[in-house]
Amino acid sequence: MAAAKRAKDSAASSFVSEERLWRRHMEMAKIGATAKGGVNRQALTPEDARARALLAEWARGLGFACAMDAIGNVFIRRPGAQAAAAPVISGSHTDSQPSGGRFDGISGVLAALEALEAMNQAGIETRRPVEAAVWTNEEGSRFASGCMGSQVYTEPAKLARMLAMKDLDGMSLKEALAATRAAMPTLPERPLKSPIDCFVELHIEQGPVLEATGNVIGIVTGIAGSRRFEVEVLGEDAHAGTTPRARRKDAVLAASAMIQALHKMMADPEDEVRFTIGQIRVKPNAMAVVPGYVLFTIDFRHQSEEVLTRLGDRIEGVCRAQAGPCEVTLTETRRAPTKMFSGLVPDAIEAVTRKLGVPYMRLFSGAGHDARYVADLCPTGMIFVPCEKGISHNEAENAKPSDLAAGARVLADTLVALANR
Amino acid sequence: MAAAKRAKDSAASSFVSEERLWRRHMEMAKIGATAKGGVNRQALTPEDARARALLAEWARGLGFACAMDAIGNVFIRRPGAQAAAAPVISGSHTDSQPSGGRFDGISGVLAALEALEAMNQAGIETRRPVEAAVWTNEEGSRFASGCMGSQVYTEPAKLARMLAMKDLDGMSLKEALAATRAAMPTLPERPLKSPIDCFVELHIEQGPVLEATGNVIGIVTGIAGSRRFEVEVLGEDAHAGTTPRARRKDAVLAASAMIQALHKMMADPEDEVRFTIGQIRVKPNAMAVVPGYVLFTIDFRHQSEEVLTRLGDRIEGVCRAQAGPCEVTLTETRRAPTKMFSGLVPDAIEAVTRKLGVPYMRLFSGAGHDARYVADLCPTGMIFVPCEKGISHNEAENAKPSDLAAGARVLADTLVALANR
Repeated sequence: MAAAKRAKDSAASSFVSEERLWRRHMEMAKIGATAKGGVNRQALTPEDARARALLAEWARGLGFACAMDAIGNVFIRRPGAQAAAAPVISGSHTDSQPSGGRFDGISGVLAALEALEAMNQAGIETRRPVEAAVWTNEEGSRFASGCMGSQVYTEPAKLARMLAMKDLDGMSLKEALAATRAAMPTLPERPLKSPIDCFVELHIEQGPVLEATGNVIGIVTGIAGSRRFEVEVLGEDAHAGTTPRARRKDAVLAASAMIQALHKMMADPEDEVRFTIGQIRVKPNAMAVVPGYVLFTIDFRHQSEEVLTRLGDRIEGVCRAQAGPCEVTLTETRRAPTKMFSGLVPDAIEAVTRKLGVPYMRLFSGAGHDARYVADLCPTGMIFVPCEKGISHNEAENAKPSDLAAGARVLADTLVALANR
Repeated sequence: MAAAKRAKDSAASSFVSEERLWRRHMEMAKIGATAKGGVNRQALTPEDARARALLAEWARGLGFACAMDAIGNVFIRRPGAQAAAAPVISGSHTDSQPSGGRFDGISGVLAALEALEAMNQAGIETRRPVEAAVWTNEEGSRFASGCMGSQVYTEPAKLARMLAMKDLDGMSLKEALAATRAAMPTLPERPLKSPIDCFVELHIEQGPVLEATGNVIGIVTGIAGSRRFEVEVLGEDAHAGTTPRARRKDAVLAASAMIQALHKMMADPEDEVRFTIGQIRVKPNAMAVVPGYVLFTIDFRHQSEEVLTRLGDRIEGVCRAQAGPCEVTLTETRRAPTKMFSGLVPDAIEAVTRKLGVPYMRLFSGAGHDARYVADLCPTGMIFVPCEKGISHNEAENAKPSDLAAGARVLADTLVALANR
């Protein structure tokens, strides 16, 4: 069958196997599987290490060499005719949110591996090497800086600060990374910021647009900018049974007023603002104590830098106006600008998609991805595939085997085209 | 000096030592001491066990025998002339809130021990035995049922349910209690619900009234009733960057609207309602995930049963009205009726206080205490002493050595009067 195919069509896409790709998704989904059918495989946990080890095992079985860099990013290499040329890279991440799904991140890693295997089967030799990559800690749920691997790769000066980060249990990223390395075969070191020829990331859309429009491929035009904040509300612990309302400095009461007012301020008729308060920590968090401390996080995204600045700069004033007898401190923990993709990579994806006859559209990403950071080093683009009802960062996240395979076909031929141009 | 005192005045109160009582407070405050000068000595932790062991060591040094019951309550016995008579008991608790102070609970235990020691020094023989008691887990912060020791003592049928409770780390109360027992000398078993002749509990007021009125002793007329609830808000986890507002089921947004509306509904011009939302748990509690689940607790107290019923029964409707696209479940976890103290014990306290010439008043308690439950078994009363600015359940909690000593003097003579009546 494969031999017959090769005779009439040597395109890598012809050798993409929907069944094999789906089976690998399901094997990966067992690692960190949750009772509700999702995945809890946070960055550099034993589960994340097992997923990486399984991937390396598959890669070795296909004859590909692996390497790892100082922040734990993994690179699976298919050599090119020009051994010293900068590689074309594709990949995403193996880590998940604490209540994540079976496709976010891992689909991009498995599609890249599938593309490499399909190139082998098609007997294709490319000029440049082609690599599948795993970027460390894209989610940022365990160690708070998301897209950590791609950030450090493109800006190695950030390495020391990232290694020193601690999770809620007090384990440093450095320790967690050492444990992850120990769980994998010894890999040669890849220097940070090694040249990349160009980068393509496949990812589930994490939104409803492709499904709603009947498209199977989304060619991503850019990634929304975001601002993140921590709001600390300082009141005073007091006895719940004896302290009159007039004497209370109740941080939960003040924080809930801020949350209400912030959502009201951020409401736009177009429903394009993405404003989320996802984390709340209360101290002492005891039933019979008026709480004296609350910390909550803000994640605010929009495609317009002007809106990010104008509305984001109002957050502090809204919080202060609702603080009542409490004090409030606002810290901006991250600002990521809107990043546009155009030219070489999106155009190559579009040419392949047209040729394969897959229904597609161009669309913008509200979600952040490693591609945002890799784009600082080289021409970059992204391929979105549909996910059910747009549900993501949720254990119910789902995608169709045929859509995942269509994405891998587009990816495979795009990588060959880029590696041979 | 002691001999000279004994010659002219054999009242136990004359032998209460302000210096000794304060020193014992400061030694206890070292156990579980926090950086901010408070105490974290939650029920049946190693710190709570160390506090109990130190108390038992002091008791043995004074020649008193100790006993423990099935829920870990400790009894330090000074024998009476009628060995078989039911004892007069005084005491409180050694456990604290996670960010608790140096006086809540422990002052009542140390005052009772001081009273026993003063009786020794005064050479007083009482008809009935007099005991100092430690009730287990008054605070209910680690294991969620407060006043656990006094509840189980007076209603032993609750024992099995309490032993099965687990803390947030999954440790059962039964295991924690075994560890506490192991850290103390082996004590003979006291049967639950053994008869008590009468009970007096000394406690810091935990409110501002005594200090504001210049009184040193508060004779407690009763304890406010309370209702406790857990509110669970069920939304849907979703991606913070891609999910439009119109499609979100944001449990934090809904919960904050509920918290605001509940506080508004509970606002009374008299400022007599005590309404507290002290605990919030968010899942998955990740920065980039629209949160699909919130649990918050409600602690609602008032001296009027009618108000507790009328306003408490409105809570569910207010939550439902603010739920938006989320679902809400309300569970009433506890209802404790208002408990009045009158007759024998408060009258005995008042007679002693007048005789000693200490400024006093009668007042009502908004805080719950073990005395509420012990009152189901025997005549009961409470003595309040002032605490600075009424601050309690707070690491800054403070009290004056002279006020603590005044309270111990009133307690000592009250116990003698009750034990000899």
